[in-house]
Amino acid sequence: MTLEAIRYRAGSLQILNQLLLPHQTVYDEIRSVQDAYEAIKSMKVRGAPAIAIVGCLSLAVELRAGAGGDDPVTFIRESLCQLTSARPTAVNMGRAARELMEFAENESMEKNSEQLRESVIAWIEDMLERDVNDNKKIGNYGAQHILSGVPRDSVTILTHCNTGSLATAGYGTALGVVRSLHGLGRLKRVYCTETRPYNQGSRLTAYEAVAERIPATLITDSMAALTMREMNITAVVVGADRVVANGDTANKVGTYQLAIAAKHHGIPFYVAAPSTSCDLSLESGRDIIIEVRPPEELTSINGVPIAAPGIEVWNPAFDVTPHQLITGGIITELGVFLPSELQAALTGRLTAL
Amino acid sequence: MTLEAIRYRAGSLQILNQLLLPHQTVYDEIRSVQDAYEAIKSMKVRGAPAIAIVGCLSLAVELRAGAGGDDPVTFIRESLCQLTSARPTAVNMGRAARELMEFAENESMEKNSEQLRESVIAWIEDMLERDVNDNKKIGNYGAQHILSGVPRDSVTILTHCNTGSLATAGYGTALGVVRSLHGLGRLKRVYCTETRPYNQGSRLTAYEAVAERIPATLITDSMAALTMREMNITAVVVGADRVVANGDTANKVGTYQLAIAAKHHGIPFYVAAPSTSCDLSLESGRDIIIEVRPPEELTSINGVPIAAPGIEVWNPAFDVTPHQLITGGIITELGVFLPSELQAALTGRLTAL
Repeated sequence: MTLEAIRYRAGSLQILNQLLLPHQTVYDEIRSVQDAYEAIKSMKVRGAPAIAIVGCLSLAVELRAGAGGDDPVTFIRESLCQLTSARPTAVNMGRAARELMEFAENESMEKNSEQLRESVIAWIEDMLERDVNDNKKIGNYGAQHILSGVPRDSVTILTHCNTGSLATAGYGTALGVVRSLHGLGRLKRVYCTETRPYNQGSRLTAYEAVAERIPATLITDSMAALTMREMNITAVVVGADRVVANGDTANKVGTYQLAIAAKHHGIPFYVAAPSTSCDLSLESGRDIIIEVRPPEELTSINGVPIAAPGIEVWNPAFDVTPHQLITGGIITELGVFLPSELQAALTGRLTAL
Repeated sequence: MTLEAIRYRAGSLQILNQLLLPHQTVYDEIRSVQDAYEAIKSMKVRGAPAIAIVGCLSLAVELRAGAGGDDPVTFIRESLCQLTSARPTAVNMGRAARELMEFAENESMEKNSEQLRESVIAWIEDMLERDVNDNKKIGNYGAQHILSGVPRDSVTILTHCNTGSLATAGYGTALGVVRSLHGLGRLKRVYCTETRPYNQGSRLTAYEAVAERIPATLITDSMAALTMREMNITAVVVGADRVVANGDTANKVGTYQLAIAAKHHGIPFYVAAPSTSCDLSLESGRDIIIEVRPPEELTSINGVPIAAPGIEVWNPAFDVTPHQLITGGIITELGVFLPSELQAALTGRLTAL
């Protein structure tokens, strides 16, 4: 069974409500752009790639019902504007909106309203298919690269945060690599960190693993180094919020610490990210601004206080792992590259693995 | 104000119930060895030194009420055996039990039951006083050692778990060093990790810091390396459950990972531990058996599930930090020593700092 976080067929969209996970598995119907806006805003759906695809699919659903009437371009523009404002820091929605708007405006030159709706719907459905296919390529490239170091054995992977079906259009990035290894019958076990303070590991990655019967063990973030020493970890694989030109990678806080521990133990450290998460406009990780989130994420769980009242808190949401620590490579849909090769690979000057 | 975690006067023992912290400050009466065994087992009291002192004080309370009748030695032996079994990784209870048993057996040669009870009670009360004094010496030696590297500046410390008044007979070990620095007016700030899964940092260390107005910031365990890079950490100071002959140190899980990160950033890493936590009978950390605790500590908080149902869990309570990573030194009541000097120092062949 493959976990389906986004259920789409022509004219119909449902999403797995992540606010109720892991305790309840409930799909919510998304009938309109407004529904999607609210689902994104309230974090029923999260993960930058998943936000973009749900937003665009909600537009496809409305267009199929004839929304926009004689002026679909205006309707599309207003819808994308609304969707982009739901979580303004999620870069993928903004990128998809710009590309889709440009496409729609070009199409509108030579097509009537009905034809325009059809071609925009096709563009969005293509995007869904392309995203899932890119993730499967990432999974496959990553699995092959890891297995090339251990020709016969099963492997044990350590991962962080949630980078699976619940964060992407489907399949996942780092967790896609784990899925591929499992599909090949070569995964012995994956260790997933709980990923404080938002517990994406214990809530979401663990949920995906249980749902698909992937052998998985939950540990606290503080146990990662011990796990590396005791559990014969083959590789550490994490996702990325942004990879910049020199390979420095911003990802969920804790990633930097895992990379240091992996280096200490001589374990290859991989970043799995579609090329759309690579931002060659920034030279190094020093240029990335790190979001600091509210103290309450540390001091309470589900509204119940868990820390001493009055304590000060520092809650950075991400950290930057310097490229020197990404010893395994950066896994993209184009292949696996060393940080130093990334720029050339993404600009077509280097061919895949 | 100094936080009082153990309230003892002749014939009466109360402990601050740490299961209810930080939200309720409730003292539980300990009337018997059985009460103490249950309090230790259920972690109403925790921290290796505090476990030993509460265990022994509970015995003193029973002896003062005449326990053991005509054969106090048998009663003492059985009591100590029970107390030692409650949390086997913590070395202090085992050591106190051996020393006290030897003392009681010697005394029994020449004293009657009543006299024996009196002298064992006196031995235990001495132990309480000595432990607090030893902690103050640890605090002072540690503070001086850290300050010797930064003659004029205030210092920023990172610590793990709880090693304060709530973990010891009073004052604390690693947190005692922090208290001393604060008392000297030289502490800029202490960063405390929340210390999953049991949250001793966010519940207990934060509680002590707020209670005594020590400038403190709470972070998740996963943020420690980022904090080292961004916050100008002067030293990392942690406690110990057991330090063995070569300086390898068993402590709360996560310590090993902190030591690796400290090494990576060139930050001195200190272990603060009374000589009673040092166990020269073991050659290296490989000989230490690590307690694995129930999965529920990760999968629920206060009985409320927080992880995906059905996920497997690994929950080792401690890890072992190899002596090579203890770059600052081991802070004892005798002085600060390099791991390689520890054995000589404890056997009187090396004098203090």
